[in-house]
Formats: sequence, structure tokens, C-alpha cells
Amino acid sequence: MSKSKAVVLLSGGLDSATTLAIAKQQGFDLYALSFRYGQRHIAELEAAKKVAAEAGVRDHMIASINLRQFGGSALTQDIDVPKGRATSEMSEGIPVTYVPARNTIFLSFALAWAEVLTAPDIFIGVNALDYSGYPDCRPEYIDAYVRMANLATKTGVTGEATLKIHTPLIQMTKAQIIRRGTELGLKYGLTHSCYDPTVEGLSCGECDSCLLRLKGFSEAGLKDPARYAQRGAA
Amino acid sequence: MSKSKAVVLLSGGLDSATTLAIAKQQGFDLYALSFRYGQRHIAELEAAKKVAAEAGVRDHMIASINLRQFGGSALTQDIDVPKGRATSEMSEGIPVTYVPARNTIFLSFALAWAEVLTAPDIFIGVNALDYSGYPDCRPEYIDAYVRMANLATKTGVTGEATLKIHTPLIQMTKAQIIRRGTELGLKYGLTHSCYDPTVEGLSCGECDSCLLRLKGFSEAGLKDPARYAQRGAA
Repeated sequence: MSKSKAVVLLSGGLDSATTLAIAKQQGFDLYALSFRYGQRHIAELEAAKKVAAEAGVRDHMIASINLRQFGGSALTQDIDVPKGRATSEMSEGIPVTYVPARNTIFLSFALAWAEVLTAPDIFIGVNALDYSGYPDCRPEYIDAYVRMANLATKTGVTGEATLKIHTPLIQMTKAQIIRRGTELGLKYGLTHSCYDPTVEGLSCGECDSCLLRLKGFSEAGLKDPARYAQRGAA
Repeated sequence: MSKSKAVVLLSGGLDSATTLAIAKQQGFDLYALSFRYGQRHIAELEAAKKVAAEAGVRDHMIASINLRQFGGSALTQDIDVPKGRATSEMSEGIPVTYVPARNTIFLSFALAWAEVLTAPDIFIGVNALDYSGYPDCRPEYIDAYVRMANLATKTGVTGEATLKIHTPLIQMTKAQIIRRGTELGLKYGLTHSCYDPTVEGLSCGECDSCLLRLKGFSEAGLKDPARYAQRGAA
């Protein structure tokens, strides 16, 4: 019997790489989907390629979309990425690194591919605990997305809609995520988390994403294999 | 007082052009959004530019996305477009011209732009009567989309979510749509509906889209100003 297919959103960061490892462990045939979306740094896309190859995915699609033309985010515009914030500050309000409707757009492409592959399973590494204030990482958002998606597609018309969006990390702390990925043999040195890497590709160690990652490794009692520009960070 | 902004999805076809005219008549400041999505023919994109200019939109954004890489549709792949079908046949099942998750993807980009513009109004020209079997043109789909979208964005977190998706054509026949647009002074000669135009840009007069359009003009008692390759069609 052939394995069930799953479309896995893969940014190249720690969370999505762990999600891919979990989907693999669950026995799915893996179709990884990444985006070139006008992000200021493509280091994460390079990381996504390495992570996908290491996981032995069946296919890795990179879709090009230009979110930069809409503006509104430090990740696609020339707006300063905040540095050195306490974790408590990160959960207050929505950060400038929020990209408008990003997960909604990403999931919509995953839905298109899933429909063509007749793969009713989509994996996304959203996280509601260490979610850094993004509205489209919350469980109630994902639930509403599934309801919509099951009406959007061919199977929605025939009443056979069985789309499922898997969010295995949604209630995990960063430390739990890192421990789980480590158990599954994931090489975190291949992943990239930093919002503002140096020209040499070193992580800044000071943006929200680096700080959450470092805190996670510290709490998991593990050493982060990422390379940091700041000596103090590692 | 400045006018409210609205993002209007504009394909360049008859329905979306009429939707733009209705949004204009309702007093909105217009932001038209079109897509270069790997469609086999770009005649409709040329039509969208003319229609947007004629309507005096504030901005017309053309987003490039590649739906062709996912496959699965006669509109983006080398699959024959059906010709000469009766209207009753069109409503049976989902046609090969269906593009997987297309409206879901289009609305997601509209949502991103609406959030950046702080424009809580989106217009889309979907139609549930002459809808040619597309699942993502049904009212229950649009309702589910709004619920999801109001959880996806910044205002969804603060509880100020007021996104509205306007579907002014959803319960109108093609003839009613054409009469309404004509009352509003819309120049239908600028629009393009054909799924399979000739190299000279003439409409085929035989695909589902041409046949629905011709039937609409006939029932409205008006002459279609589009240019057709088939003499019999016009």
C-alpha cells in the first residue's frame, strides 16, 4: 500500500523543520512547500532546501510570491527588526515582523497543491505558546481555516471533504519542540531562525526569533548548533 | 472626509468589471488587484488594466504567482477547454477549467493588501447562479472565509475585526449583471471573458465562459461588444 501524502509548509526555521520530522515519523510521503516571498534574507530558503533534502522528501516546491509589494512588515521592508527584547515584551501586541496574512497565503498555496495531489493532509508548524504575537498562529484561526478550506475545494462540493491541518507544535514550548526534534534525529544546524542575519549568514542572536531559539535550547539543556555573530549569544 | 477604501479583485472579465463599477457607485476609493497566475492567455490581464484605468482606480496592483506549477487545471495547463456545452451541462460536476484553490489564494492576497491599507472592505465578483460549477463561488464558502479572515489579522487579535467581503453579484443572473453594469455606464467592450481566445485575441464563442456571456447579453436584450472568431456567436 502506498503511503498517504502530506504537504508540509517548510520555512527552513526550527519549528517547520521539526514539523517535517514529525510528519515523516508519522509515515507520510512528504511534499515540502517553501516560499520566496520578498523576505529580506534568503538564508532561510537555503536552510529549507537542506532540511528537505536531509528528510528525503518526495518533492520540494518553492513558490515565488511578492509580499513586499503590499508592504507592512519589517521582514519584507526596510524597517528595523527589534533587538534584545525580553520574552514577556514579545507577547505584548503584534510585532513589526508580522507579515500581513502570511499564513493565510501560505496555507492557500498548500491547499491548492494538496488538492492536485489529492493529499488531504497539510502540516504547519505554528505555535501558540512562543508565538511571538502573530494572530495567524492561534488554534481558533487554524480551525476556521479548515472549515473554510473544506468548502473551497472539489471535495467540498461532493461532501467528501476530509482536509486536515496538522499543527503538532501548537501547544509545545520551544524547549519541548527542540527535544522532540532531537529525539527524531533532526539536525538543527541545518535550520535558520534569525530575522536579521549578518552578510556572512551568521545569526544576530538578538532578534525575537534568535532569543526564543536560544532560550529554547537553554531550557532543553542542549547546545544550539547555529552560528551566532554575538559571542555572548551562544 | 476621505472615502473608505476597498480592495476589488479584478480579473478583467465581465463579472469582476461589473463588481468594480458597483464598488465605485457605492463611493469607495478603489484599489484593484489582479493576478498574473500562469493563465494560458493574458488577454484578460490586458482587459483588467483597461477596465481599472477607465474606472479611475486609486491603485492597480498586479501580483505574480505561479499556479501552473501546481497543475490541475485547463486554464493553466495544456488541457483542452470544453466547447459548445449546454448551460445545463456546465452545472454538472466541476469543470476542467477549475483552478484549485484559486479564489482562496486571490482572497488571501486581497486580505494582505486590505490589512496594510486598513481597508476592511473587499469586493469579489463571484456568482452562485451562473457559477459554472466552481466550489469557491458559493455563499457558504465566502461566509467561512470571512470568519477565518477576521481571526487571521491584527484586528482579529484586538477584537476590532470588521472585514467584509462584498459579493454583489452572488445571486444575480448573467443578464441581470449585464443590465446593472450597463446602467452604471460600464464599457463591456473593454472586458474579456473567453477561456480560449485566438492568437489575434478574438473570443472563441464556444467555451463555457463565452456561452454564458452570450446567453447573458441575449437575455438582457443587449448586443455583446466583444469580438468573436465564430461568426455565428455574435
